[in-house]
Amino acid sequence: MYEEIKKILSKIKKVKPLILNITNDVTMDFIANGLLSVGASPMMSKAKSEMDDLLQLADAVTINLGTLDDQFISLCDYVCETANQLQKPIVLDPVGSGASDYRTRASLNLINQFRIAIIRANASEILSLSDGSFKTKGVDSVDESNKAIESARRLAHRSQSLVVMSGKTDVIVGDERIAQLTYGSPFMPKITGSGCLLSSVVCTFHAVEENRFDASVYATAFYGMCGEAAEKKAKGPASFKMQFLDALSFMPDADHD
Amino acid sequence: MYEEIKKILSKIKKVKPLILNITNDVTMDFIANGLLSVGASPMMSKAKSEMDDLLQLADAVTINLGTLDDQFISLCDYVCETANQLQKPIVLDPVGSGASDYRTRASLNLINQFRIAIIRANASEILSLSDGSFKTKGVDSVDESNKAIESARRLAHRSQSLVVMSGKTDVIVGDERIAQLTYGSPFMPKITGSGCLLSSVVCTFHAVEENRFDASVYATAFYGMCGEAAEKKAKGPASFKMQFLDALSFMPDADHD
Amino acid sequence: MYEEIKKILSKIKKVKPLILNITNDVTMDFIANGLLSVGASPMMSKAKSEMDDLLQLADAVTINLGTLDDQFISLCDYVCETANQLQKPIVLDPVGSGASDYRTRASLNLINQFRIAIIRANASEILSLSDGSFKTKGVDSVDESNKAIESARRLAHRSQSLVVMSGKTDVIVGDERIAQLTYGSPFMPKITGSGCLLSSVVCTFHAVEENRFDASVYATAFYGMCGEAAEKKAKGPASFKMQFLDALSFMPDADHD
Repeated sequence: MYEEIKKILSKIKKVKPLILNITNDVTMDFIANGLLSVGASPMMSKAKSEMDDLLQLADAVTINLGTLDDQFISLCDYVCETANQLQKPIVLDPVGSGASDYRTRASLNLINQFRIAIIRANASEILSLSDGSFKTKGVDSVDESNKAIESARRLAHRSQSLVVMSGKTDVIVGDERIAQLTYGSPFMPKITGSGCLLSSVVCTFHAVEENRFDASVYATAFYGMCGEAAEKKAKGPASFKMQFLDALSFMPDADHD
Repeated sequence: MYEEIKKILSKIKKVKPLILNITNDVTMDFIANGLLSVGASPMMSKAKSEMDDLLQLADAVTINLGTLDDQFISLCDYVCETANQLQKPIVLDPVGSGASDYRTRASLNLINQFRIAIIRANASEILSLSDGSFKTKGVDSVDESNKAIESARRLAHRSQSLVVMSGKTDVIVGDERIAQLTYGSPFMPKITGSGCLLSSVVCTFHAVEENRFDASVYATAFYGMCGEAAEKKAKGPASFKMQFLDALSFMPDADHD
Repeated sequence: MYEEIKKILSKIKKVKPLILNITNDVTMDFIANGLLSVGASPMMSKAKSEMDDLLQLADAVTINLGTLDDQFISLCDYVCETANQLQKPIVLDPVGSGASDYRTRASLNLINQFRIAIIRANASEILSLSDGSFKTKGVDSVDESNKAIESARRLAHRSQSLVVMSGKTDVIVGDERIAQLTYGSPFMPKITGSGCLLSSVVCTFHAVEENRFDASVYATAFYGMCGEAAEKKAKGPASFKMQFLDALSFMPDADHD
């Protein structure tokens, strides 16, 4: 899959797709730097008044619910509606769904009302979205393997979205295909925003690769490979973060394969 | 104190206490990464609508007034009231108290209305809270040693809060005891949020160690030791920051003692 | 120009000018850390209620429109009006002007209504402000050399502001003088906020050096030199960012000249 990733990365570096991020206050800086490393052109905004203009420019949109409130939810509604009209693909990151009813409902409302190309979440978030009764502990991942995969399938089927379920094993659930990937590093859950940035990187890959299954698989694999490369040079979570952002700017090197 | 710190850190890594941070926009990312390094599970939110749910999950709460406005203050009121009802301990960081009347008043209102377990601040902030007339220059620390310690005592007595006063010497003022610690690095005031993160680390220690004096002393000592370890490997403030966040993820090593 | 830069840096480290940043949510942390490295004392706020107090304390103000919305724009109006009354210099960073009409209008309104000492922007933003019809692609720079310099001149003349136009070549357009500088690193556009921080560093230099042309030239040169020094030790954008923030804390060393 090495060559395919390289092809997409080259296209990103050439096209510099404009990725509009309607995202949280905590990891904005990390997302912006990560997308710049990959070669995309990130935009962040929270003003409804400029969304028509920005969506015209944007190649794709990521919606991240990390620090939502009523105003933010109303902004997301508007962005999703407009993006659907303009046929710009949407990636949704339902951060912390399950940790509060408020988050679960906000996520489900977007999924039920709009065409979301890709939902990128961890197992606990996906469980909360497909089985209303499930409660998570905060924003961390719970892995329940088969049960979680079954949930991801149901969510994908109901929403017509592709689902990327991240964890030790990343599971990509498309219409007819499922891929499981085991790249990555134990440092990843030790830095804030590693899930958020993956969502925006998946969005970037999909901006230049129309097939959302391929885009998600290659983005997730590349992201995990960068984690593995970074881990080799890291002493702790912060040096890992630096090495990881550096790695995102390189072509995956032959040592990985 | 080495063994005590290790015991608390082990408990944190095992329990992964959920620390709810109602905090500022500038240093959110740093706080989240710092808490992940220590082993806690950080949550950030600004939505009143989910506070009941999140406070049920949370083990402790940090309130940080770094970028307050009217809406934020009203959120803090609600969070403190609910946290008091649910008996979840609150750590308050009155950032910039004294720099504006608005900040001083907001801090005092919280202290006067609610049970705050621990106030973590620098000398100038504490002077502004205990002597209404004191004016600070921005958010930086002024050290006036004995006068400041006397102020911290008065504040602790009046508020029934434990007071952690940070500076070159950290002073922990409990009901009947005072501890002075001299760990730390001159790089600390050169990175933004070093005080904010200390407040959240103190909160994390208190989430697993009920005695707030012990929790504050060990958290402050550990934090300062990490600063000393990081300084040895740092060339400037940014490499210090990276080394420091890495150090927070390690057990304090025997070399320190 | 080496000695002049050193003189200003020494003054900054001595005076620790208080720089009030009314700025965006993405790069706040980077700006705060960058200013601390240089030796300034950064303040961030979004509360109108404390602006009178903070502006009394502040030596200079940076207004950055990176994540503007209606409330933020109204805040900027108030800050500019008060700063003009108090004779505190304002540096404006019209981030993304041209990417949306909303941004262009917000920027022009500030420029037309208030005395802005310095406008720091990239070529595409400046084109949008001086030629209403120009549309940019996001927040990235377009270099159109002579056309852009002509635009910067017109903007400077109309607004009576000094204009710092950043890009591969940095152009400083004063009342009667123009300087062109070619310091810098290709890594700079690969980290988010490199323009934002430059605006705040220019503001810091102007806080201690009244002549805004000199302040802008020396700040821009120093900033670019730090980029060059950092590039030598960097492997990718994130290690560059760390080296760069470290470099900002040093005196420019003789190797550079």
